[in-house]
This record gives sequence, structure tokens and C-alpha cells, in this order.
Amino acid sequence: MTASNHDALWLAILQEAELAVRDEPLLASFLHMTVLRHGTLEDVLAFHLSSKLASPVMDARALMELFREAFAANPAIIQAVRADITACFERDPACDSYSTPLLYFKGFHALQSQRITHWLWQEGRKTLAYFLQNRISEVMGADIHPAAKIGHGVMLDHGTGIVVGETAVIGNNVSILQGVTLGGTGKDHGDRHPKVGDGVLIGANTSILGNIRIGDCSKVGAGSVVLDDVPAHCTVVGVPARVVAQLCPGTPALDMDQRV
Amino acid sequence: MTASNHDALWLAILQEAELAVRDEPLLASFLHMTVLRHGTLEDVLAFHLSSKLASPVMDARALMELFREAFAANPAIIQAVRADITACFERDPACDSYSTPLLYFKGFHALQSQRITHWLWQEGRKTLAYFLQNRISEVMGADIHPAAKIGHGVMLDHGTGIVVGETAVIGNNVSILQGVTLGGTGKDHGDRHPKVGDGVLIGANTSILGNIRIGDCSKVGAGSVVLDDVPAHCTVVGVPARVVAQLCPGTPALDMDQRV
Amino acid sequence: MTASNHDALWLAILQEAELAVRDEPLLASFLHMTVLRHGTLEDVLAFHLSSKLASPVMDARALMELFREAFAANPAIIQAVRADITACFERDPACDSYSTPLLYFKGFHALQSQRITHWLWQEGRKTLAYFLQNRISEVMGADIHPAAKIGHGVMLDHGTGIVVGETAVIGNNVSILQGVTLGGTGKDHGDRHPKVGDGVLIGANTSILGNIRIGDCSKVGAGSVVLDDVPAHCTVVGVPARVVAQLCPGTPALDMDQRV
Amino acid sequence: MTASNHDALWLAILQEAELAVRDEPLLASFLHMTVLRHGTLEDVLAFHLSSKLASPVMDARALMELFREAFAANPAIIQAVRADITACFERDPACDSYSTPLLYFKGFHALQSQRITHWLWQEGRKTLAYFLQNRISEVMGADIHPAAKIGHGVMLDHGTGIVVGETAVIGNNVSILQGVTLGGTGKDHGDRHPKVGDGVLIGANTSILGNIRIGDCSKVGAGSVVLDDVPAHCTVVGVPARVVAQLCPGTPALDMDQRV
Amino acid sequence: MTASNHDALWLAILQEAELAVRDEPLLASFLHMTVLRHGTLEDVLAFHLSSKLASPVMDARALMELFREAFAANPAIIQAVRADITACFERDPACDSYSTPLLYFKGFHALQSQRITHWLWQEGRKTLAYFLQNRISEVMGADIHPAAKIGHGVMLDHGTGIVVGETAVIGNNVSILQGVTLGGTGKDHGDRHPKVGDGVLIGANTSILGNIRIGDCSKVGAGSVVLDDVPAHCTVVGVPARVVAQLCPGTPALDMDQRV
Amino acid sequence: MTASNHDALWLAILQEAELAVRDEPLLASFLHMTVLRHGTLEDVLAFHLSSKLASPVMDARALMELFREAFAANPAIIQAVRADITACFERDPACDSYSTPLLYFKGFHALQSQRITHWLWQEGRKTLAYFLQNRISEVMGADIHPAAKIGHGVMLDHGTGIVVGETAVIGNNVSILQGVTLGGTGKDHGDRHPKVGDGVLIGANTSILGNIRIGDCSKVGAGSVVLDDVPAHCTVVGVPARVVAQLCPGTPALDMDQRV
Repeated sequence: MTASNHDALWLAILQEAELAVRDEPLLASFLHMTVLRHGTLEDVLAFHLSSKLASPVMDARALMELFREAFAANPAIIQAVRADITACFERDPACDSYSTPLLYFKGFHALQSQRITHWLWQEGRKTLAYFLQNRISEVMGADIHPAAKIGHGVMLDHGTGIVVGETAVIGNNVSILQGVTLGGTGKDHGDRHPKVGDGVLIGANTSILGNIRIGDCSKVGAGSVVLDDVPAHCTVVGVPARVVAQLCPGTPALDMDQRV
Repeated sequence: MTASNHDALWLAILQEAELAVRDEPLLASFLHMTVLRHGTLEDVLAFHLSSKLASPVMDARALMELFREAFAANPAIIQAVRADITACFERDPACDSYSTPLLYFKGFHALQSQRITHWLWQEGRKTLAYFLQNRISEVMGADIHPAAKIGHGVMLDHGTGIVVGETAVIGNNVSILQGVTLGGTGKDHGDRHPKVGDGVLIGANTSILGNIRIGDCSKVGAGSVVLDDVPAHCTVVGVPARVVAQLCPGTPALDMDQRV
Repeated sequence: MTASNHDALWLAILQEAELAVRDEPLLASFLHMTVLRHGTLEDVLAFHLSSKLASPVMDARALMELFREAFAANPAIIQAVRADITACFERDPACDSYSTPLLYFKGFHALQSQRITHWLWQEGRKTLAYFLQNRISEVMGADIHPAAKIGHGVMLDHGTGIVVGETAVIGNNVSILQGVTLGGTGKDHGDRHPKVGDGVLIGANTSILGNIRIGDCSKVGAGSVVLDDVPAHCTVVGVPARVVAQLCPGTPALDMDQRV
Repeated sequence: MTASNHDALWLAILQEAELAVRDEPLLASFLHMTVLRHGTLEDVLAFHLSSKLASPVMDARALMELFREAFAANPAIIQAVRADITACFERDPACDSYSTPLLYFKGFHALQSQRITHWLWQEGRKTLAYFLQNRISEVMGADIHPAAKIGHGVMLDHGTGIVVGETAVIGNNVSILQGVTLGGTGKDHGDRHPKVGDGVLIGANTSILGNIRIGDCSKVGAGSVVLDDVPAHCTVVGVPARVVAQLCPGTPALDMDQRV
Repeated sequence: MTASNHDALWLAILQEAELAVRDEPLLASFLHMTVLRHGTLEDVLAFHLSSKLASPVMDARALMELFREAFAANPAIIQAVRADITACFERDPACDSYSTPLLYFKGFHALQSQRITHWLWQEGRKTLAYFLQNRISEVMGADIHPAAKIGHGVMLDHGTGIVVGETAVIGNNVSILQGVTLGGTGKDHGDRHPKVGDGVLIGANTSILGNIRIGDCSKVGAGSVVLDDVPAHCTVVGVPARVVAQLCPGTPALDMDQRV
Repeated sequence: MTASNHDALWLAILQEAELAVRDEPLLASFLHMTVLRHGTLEDVLAFHLSSKLASPVMDARALMELFREAFAANPAIIQAVRADITACFERDPACDSYSTPLLYFKGFHALQSQRITHWLWQEGRKTLAYFLQNRISEVMGADIHPAAKIGHGVMLDHGTGIVVGETAVIGNNVSILQGVTLGGTGKDHGDRHPKVGDGVLIGANTSILGNIRIGDCSKVGAGSVVLDDVPAHCTVVGVPARVVAQLCPGTPALDMDQRV
């Protein structure tokens, strides 16, 4: 995304917020405090996520500063945030503006919060990363290990019940629905969680378990349990999952076709 | 339900609260503030839901007033609330009083909160509806689109992980358990979510996807994935779901028999 | 566990907290307030759970005192807490210290909170138990009836979406993953929920429904729906679940092998 | 004040708030939540005072409703509120808009809060009146007994340290500065506090003690101690106070000339 | 006061609170949480003061435990609390029940809070004492150094603006009104503040400065400035204060006659 | 003060906080959050004052950022803060460390908060300045107009009841005690408040009224009322104040000798 596109996204969010203030006085306070008085997308996100993750034992100001520090230290996070906003806008028919995922999508909030815990993990600040993982799980219902590697253009739809393990890897442009587990198996340390390729769509309430690979542009049907590698461009479904289609064209994560 | 029945329900709730104050001093504060000092069921609900949905960026007083406005403008909401309380009382063996769902059932709270967001949606206040949908999803774990149409006498049991899409329709006297998705498919706008008939029972962790119809008085077994229409009075189960019984007598939502 | 082991656990937790304070200044406030200024594990737990379960209508001080009363009246709770911490430490490769589950695991928090509601239930304080069940469900995403009987050495991994019914029984040394339902069937009162034996492992998003027995050391694969008794030392999987292995050696809950 | 003047005051306050939102984004949230989303002056005041007087043990919603009830039951309160706003605007050179005392003057807030406790006292709700008197004293630093009778067009400037006793009476168009005591003497019940006539000005840190009368349009210099009746149109000053001028023309409360 | 009197006081407070709950539903929550669910006067006081002194950076639970520790370690504090309640009841005609000062008198709250900071000071916990002195000064408007020695049966009427220095001593059965300073002079360390004898009455807004002695049963008129010793049984008044009466019979603090 | 002295002050504050954490575990949370995790004095002050001035309608994060902006835009504020800390340390025998006024002196907090409102006033942000003046008055009991000009090395001792008007000027190295009014007279706009020279000491509960000048190094005794100019190096006292000493050597504000 080019710099001018960046500006376009930010300007769109500001415009949407201004319109919303005009149309909905009850949100004026929220929108001014959270969006309009800030100058950048990252400041909005730092404020918004710190509102959500603060608690009687963790001050909102301290969290906001931490999140800003994360964004400043790692500009790639904000690039990913922008791609994730666009992903929601393009893939979710119920998402009709750029500010909707930014402000109101729990799965989006969980994903961006994990981008922060991931930075903390890389910096060796594991305890703080655990602390925040717990808060994210409480508030947003998604329990994503700070060490998990997640690409850009990712949509965690709805978010509730999503579990992603320590050594899981999620590629770019992936769509994951509610109730999905990318889980480990056994109690050995080491690489034990799934690797999800680019463009993959994973349907609701699916469990993918163990150090297996879901190939690029594959689709896993809702309610499935996947225990073995899935080749690229396949559709799998069932408990346990079996391949029901191969060499499928297109990118399931972008098409969002849940049928199998 | 007749006017005198309305009174009976309200009087029962008051009596239960008074008994609870006497028996459980630790709840006396909560029960006085939330129930006993109010004069109507709708005031109790407006207070209780605003306690739960308020946040550092949304004042409890503003929410309480909004919810009262919703109830005043749309008395059908309170009729549905009464039917939903009775539904929980009659169908859930663990529910031994009328105040239990009103005060303590997360699925009930999510459902009544959606009745408010639905009214906002109809009034064209979409941004506020999204704002509240997000809070409901955070607090109650159920992500129900404000546009979804939901009948009366509905029980959302436990509530966690329930997702209901924009063009979904849920009939009267339906029972839906935790982890159920009434989801869309594809990324086209337009009518893309399930239509659930009257009297239907949908088991835990089930995904029903696409603009399909679940016929009146049918039952969907737990853990199923439904991608096709289900005729009335059928039982379906499996991933993907198949019909295992037809022409079943009775109303599964009322019987709550989870066996298939 | 002997008294000296008790001390060892407590001392390890203190040491871990002290290290964390040194390494992570942002957590210093939280760790001092929650851990370091207390003299016993039960005081830490009472403080930590009351931080999480307090709300605008239930004072944190009142909850903290209640939880201390529960621990004092029923020392077996603290024995179980200790066994549960050890269970997480031994079974979860992502858990590298004793304080991690105590402070940051939502499933652990839900389980210990239920031990308190269970004590309230036994004392006849049912309304307060319901109140707290609701708060636990909101904050931790697990809806566990206060009457359910749960053994020691239990791990509720991640916790989100777990539902456990009124007459359910969970044995010792059991591991239960996210999205698992131990549910009832029908609307009759009386014994209507599963009985889970010792050493059982229940995979993610599984529904076990009705008054059936899961035998000791059996394993239920992820995404399964179980409607019939499972003998001991078996592996079952599927919707509905079928036996795929018998006379399996070992203790699945301890091995955490999710493959079936 | 006529009905159209009422409208003029309310419209001026709205206009000032709208201007302030435009000029000062940081106050936009506060002004929307407190002023702009309301339809009447009394709703603004009920919201604003309940923000200030709420506490961990007294819900803001309950207070807001109580204050609205007071205003609805006793429209004279709102008449007095309007006169008091005008008094501040006309007498205090540092007050350059109608919304300034309404939103930011502590003495004004204490006075209007006492008008509410006075209504409670008249209704026989003495305990609630005491509760609020304590909160007013904590937040606004003025300790005014709920039974005290206070006229309209009164300015309590700054407010800190003002004490007004149970049987005190304050006339119309009076100005009282910080640190002023209208106190009793002895420990007998009954009429034991000062009666302050119309148009009186009482300077800072003055103590007026006992059932004495301060005549209309008199002035009490700062730092004085008054133990005896003061005739009308006199100026008194000193410890104890002595008459330094008689038959003074004008209305000291309106002129605000502190010299003696 | 004998043990049975202690019981009488506690029972009276309970009875008054129960009556108030019945008569004033809006206070039911406050009274249950603060008074009725507790078993002793000290638990009520610890809860009530911790409600008032807690802040975003100091947890109410931690304060409550600290205050209980103070009361347990130093039972003389509770004896003094009882005498101070009785003092208010007997001397203040506006105080018509024992629970009124306990729950609603800011001067009483400041005094009892200082009894706690004084214990901390004696224990060498000076920083915590300073922290609380600051909170007491913010909430109750009285700035009393933790080292000041204060007897029993003391009434700090209204409390706002009272300042008491480090080496000040206040005897038994003293009454001090709002705005009184017992201040030091110079910047030398060491004994530099007033010593107030038993039975003394000090009127509003009076300043007593330096290491001087106010003899037993003397009276200082309101608005005075005292820079020299005052013999016992005298009345002084003025700026600076001069003796206006000697050998006065009676105990001014008990008579509360403010005239001089 | 030179740069190295600046460092010395900051290092002393850090050391004191570290010592306090070690000695007083109950303050560890407060001190870490407020002091130790920050890198500069201005960040500590911005955090601490925003903790105190935040409210349900003004977010602590927004205030903290505003205060930082003020310090960054106007470094002279921090120079004055440093001089004021030193002033308290040198003049107040009860102040035995540099962190004591910074963290615990209400008068100090009010003064520094006014330095922020004064900057806002100069920037033309009058409404925000009024908003904060009100909060400062509520929390710290000192009502200081944002337009008042205040020098450095100023000590507002205790702070309660201090009132400073719009056109007042306070010089350098001034000491002002509790209850002091620098008030206007009349209701004309324009220059109407006192001008206080350098080195002046103003005793408790004193009122200085009108556009008069208090000459350098003069002293105003406690409880006085000053209506006329006071020459330099004089001592005045009384109601109204009269000169009781002239050509006094020394600097009363530094000597803190309250005798007259």
C-alpha cells in the first residue's frame, strides 16, 4: 500500500467518524475521545485498545504508552493493521466502512492486540505478553499465544473462541472464523502447532491440531477436525477432515464461500 | 400473555428479589440497586444491561436512558422479554425462578440487548447499533448482527460463541445453544443467512451457513454443519448434516431433547 | 502434596513474581498488589479473582472477603488449586512457570472460581452462586454450574466456550479443552449430565450430552458429539462419536495427545 | 423570568457548548455527554451533579434519576437555578458566559445540590439528605445543612469552606464568599443559626454565629466574626464585628464591593 | 465506656441502618454494603474509610486490610472512635443518631483516618502515612499531620480547612471547628506546634500558631489568631487574641457556646 | 538551577521512590506506576496530576497527554516546578525529602496544575482552563484563576481554601498558607486583584482584596484582612490589617516565622 493510500485510509476513517458524530450524538463523546482528537491511525488504535484492555490492576495510560511504543518500534505492525482493515472491508459484506472493524470488530481487536504481544515476545518481555494475552482472552474471547506468527491481510471474523498456539504460523490474506483452534498436540515443547498458508479460509468451530501444514489457498469447512496436512488449493471437511475438492481455483479467504 | 400475567411475572420477580435480599446479604446491594427500587420490568432491564454494557468510554447513564427509550418506543420488545423469561423458566431445568434468567443468564442478556440494537437499526442508527453489538460480543460472548430478526419465546442457552448474521431470521419459540453460528457465505451483500422456523432446537457448536431454511419444529444435532434446507419436523445431524428422522412430532425447542 | 511441597509451590510463585517485577517494570504494580504483598497462595487467589469478578454493582472488597471465607471454610479447595497449578505446569508446554496459570490462564481462573461457587451451593447460598456463575461466564467465557462436582488436578485449557451442567461430574486429573460442553438433555430435573472419569482428555469443541459416563483414561477427539457411554481406556471421535481405539494404555489427560 | 427568557438562557448555554466543542476538542466528549445530548437545563444539571456526586457506593444512574425527580416535583428549584446562573453572570467579572457557572463553579454546584437535599428533607427523606450533604462537602467543600432555607439569585463564590447550619435562612440575591460560616451556638436544638436578609454581601472567611439577623442590603467585611444582629443597610467588620457604616445605599450583593 | 456500652453503640448503629434501609430504598445498597453485612464497628469503619480514600492508584481492598490491621494492632483507636461518635451525638444538635457521624461527618472521617496514619507513623511507616494524609486532605479537606497526637472524645466539626501540624497535641474532649489551624512557626525542626488541653473549644477559622499551650477548658473565639499561651478556663478572641474572660466554669467543648 | 542540579533533583526523587518501594510494599504499586517507570520529572508530574484530576467525564489518558504537551511547549513550567519542590523542602520542616511535595502536597499539586491552566489560558483555550480550574478546586481545594501570574519558588502550604483571582500576580519565592484569598472587589472587569511581591509570607486565613500591592519581603499575619497597599519589608496584621513592623530584614517567605 502506498503512502497516499495510507492517507486515504486515515482520511476515510476521520470522515466516517465525523459523519457518525453528526448523526449519532450518543457516540460523539466516544468518537471524539477515541478518534477525532488524534492525528494518526496508530494513536487511535493505541487509545482504543488500551480502553478495552485496561483493568483495576493495569492503568489505561500505561497501556496506551506501551502500545504506542510498540507501533513506533515496529512500523510493520501498522502496515499490517492497514491491510487487516482493508481485508475486513473487502471480505465482510456486513462491513460497510473502514472504521467499522477498527472500532467495533472484536476479532480485529484481538488480532492487533496480538501483534503487540508478539512484539513484546520478540523483545523478551514474556511476562507482560502473557499478562496481555490473558486480558485479550477475557475481553475479546480469542486466546492467541504471543509467539504465534501472523501475516497481514488477516481477518479473524467475530473472534470468539479462537485459539492459536505458540508455534502456529498464519500466512497472509487468511480468513479465520469464530471457534477455530490452531492447537498443539502432546506435551513436548518445540514446534507443535499448525502452519496455515496464504489465502486459506478456515470455517467456524474447526480444530486444526498438530504441526501440520494447510496449503496455500485451501479451504477447511466449518466444524471440521484436521489432523493431517492439507495440500494447496484443496477443500477439506469433516470429523476428521477429508479432501472433498482439489486444484480449486481462486483464493478462499477472499471469496469467503463457506460451502464445501 | 395477558395484562394480569404481566403483573404476575413482575410480582414474582419482586418477591424473588426480596427473598434473596433476606437470604443473601451480600446481594442486597445489587438487588436493591438493580431490582427493588424500580417499578417496572423494563426499568430493571435497562439498569441491568447498562451496568453490563457501560465502559470507560460509554457512560452507564446514557445507556440506561437509551434502553428506556427503546422500550418506550417499542413495547413489543418487553412482550418478547417476558416470553423469553418464561421460555428459560419452562425449558431449562437449572432455571428455578423468573429472576434467574433476567439477572444471571448471559444468553438472555445478549438476546435482549440485540432487541435494542435491532430497534436502533430500524431507526437508522446503525453506528450506535454496531457500537453496542461490539460491547455485547465482548461482555456476553454472543455476536448478533443488529439487523437479524428474532422472534419471541427464544432461549439462547449459555450464549458464548453464538454468531448470528445480518440477514438471519429466527422464528418464535426457538432454542439455540452455545457455539451456534447462523452464518453467511460468500461476500455478496443481500440475503445470505439462515432462516430458522418456529420451534426449532439447534444443538451446541452447530454451524448453519447460507440462505437456507430450517423448517418449523426441526432439530439440528450438536456439532453439526448445515449447508442445505432442512424440512419441517426433521432431525438432522453430522458434518455435513444429514436427515436422521422425519415427521417428528412435538416441538424440539420446548422438549430440549439433545439426542438425535 | 506434602506441607513442604506446599511451601515449595508458594516460594516458587513468590520468586517468579519477584523476578518479573525486576524484569518488567510495567507489571511491578500489578505483581506487588496481587502477589508480593500477600502471605499465602489463597490470599493471592482471593485478590486476583476478586479483581476480575468485581463490577460496578459488586464491590471487589466484598468478593475478596467472600473468597477468603470460602478458602478458610474448605481447605480442600486450596489443595485442589495447588494440584491444578501443577497440572497446567506439567501438561501445557506453553506454561513455563507456576505463576503463569495462577495469574494468566482464563480456564484456571474459571475453574477456581467455580470451586468457590460450588462451596456456596453446598452452603445453600444458591443465588450468590448464580450471580458469580454469570460473572465467571462473562469474564472467563466458561459457564460452569455451581453444583457440578469437579476433582483435582484438572486443566480447563483456554476455557472459552466451556459449558458444564448442574449434575455433571468431572474426575481427577482431567484435561478439558476450549469449547467443550458437558450438557444435559431434555427438560426434566434430576441427574441429566455427563460423568467424566479420572484421567480423561476431551478435545476442543466437543459436546458430551446426557447422563452418560466417560470411562477413566479415555480420550474424546476434538469436534466430537458424544451421546453414549464411553468405556474406560477408549478413544472416541466423530459426530456422533464412535470408538476408534480400545484398551489404550496411559493417561490421555496427562499425555495431551490430541491425535485420534 | 418569563418563559421566553427561560428559552434564551437554555439556548445561550447550548450555543456556548457548541462553540466550545468546536474550539476545544478535548472537551467535546464532556460537553456532548453533559450538555448537548440533553433537551433541558434540568437534565444537564441532573447529569452533571450526578457525575460529581456519584461514588463507588452510590451509582450515578440512581443519583441522576433522583435529581430529575427533585426537579420534576419542585419546579421552583429550576427557577432558582436560573436566577443563580444569572447572578453569577452579572456579579462575577470572571464569569463571561452562562454555561461557566453551570459547568465549572463549585459554589454553584454546592448550592444547587443543597436545593435537592432541601427537597429531600422536606419530603422526610433525612438520611438520604445527610448522605448527599456529606458527598457535597467532600466534592465541593461546602457543608450546607439540608434544612437550611436559601432564596434565589444567590451566589456562593468559590464555595470552599462554606458552612451553613440547620436553621439558617438566606434571603434572595445574596452573595457569600469562600470560608463563610453561618453557624449555631450552644447545643440546644431549635432555632440557633443566622437569618441573612436580601441583598446581603458576606466577605471571605467570615463567621456569623447564632440566631441573629443580618438586615437586608447589609455588608459584612471579610474575616469578620458577627455575634449580634446587624441592621439593614449597614456595613460591619472586625473580630468581633462592629458597624462601620450605616444607611448605605445600594445592594452590596450586587455591587460586590469588598471594601469596608 | 464498658463492654456493654460498646454493644449498645454497635446495636444502635445496626438498628439505625436497618431503619434507614426500610425508609430509604436508595440507600439500601450503600447501607448493606457498608454497615449491615459487617459484624463489628471496626469493620464498618475500615470499609467506609477505604471507600472514601481509595483511588485509581490505591486499591480499596488494600486500604481496607490496612485499616483493619491498624484497628487490630491498636484497640485504643476503636475506643477513641466510640468516644468521638458519642461526642458528636452529645454536642451537635444536628446529629440525631450514632450512625450519622460514623457515616456522614467529614470531620469525623478525617479524624479517624488520622488515627490510622498516626499508628503508621509510630510503626515507622512514614511514607504510607504521608500518602494517606494527602488523600485525607483531598477527600475530607482536613490536613492533619500523622505525628500529631489527638485524644479521645474529640469533635472536628465540618472539618474543611482544618490544619494540624506535626508536633501539635490535642487533649481529650476537645471541639474544633472548620478552618482551624494548629500551625507551626519558623522552619526549625523540633517542637513547634500548639498543645491544646482537655475540654477546649476552638471556633471557626481560628489560627493557633507556635509551640504554645491552650489551657484546659479554655475557649478560643471564632476568627481569632492566637500566638501566646492561653491559661486554663479562659476565653480569648481577636486578631491577635486577647483574654476576654477568666476562671470560666464549665467545659466549652461540651457546651459548644460560640459566643465570647 | 543548573542542568546538573536538575539531574540531582531527579535522581534524588528516584532514589527516594526506590527506598520507599523497599520499605513500604503497599506503596510499591503506586510508586512504580507513578514514578519509577518514567524517565523524567515532567512525565511523573503529568501522570500524577492526571490521576488526580481525571473523572468519569474526563479520561486520564487525555489529561496526561495534555499535561505533557504543556510541559513540552513551555519548559519554564518545569523550571518552576523544580524551584517549588526545593522551596517546600527548604521551608517546611515537615518535608524531609524532595518526593514528598511532588507526591503528597496538595498545595503543590494545585500550584503545578495552575501552571498548566495558565499555559492553556495564554494559548486561548479558556474553556479547558475553566474545566480544569474546577477540577483542581474540587480535588485540591484551591481555586486559582488560570489567568493569575505566579512566579517560581512558590509554596502554597496545605492549599485548602486558597482563592486567587484573575488579575492577581504572585512574585517569586512567596509562601502562602491555607485559607488565603487574593480576591477582587467590585464587579468591573479589568485589573482588580492583588499584586504580591517577591519573598512575601501570607499567613493562614488571610484575605487580601483589591488591586493593591504587597511589597517585596513583607509579611501578612494570619487571619488578617488587607485592603490597602503594604510597603516592602513591613509586617501587617489585623482586621483590617495595620503595619506593626517596618524595615524588617530577611525574607519572610523563607523564614516562615508566623509571629507578628
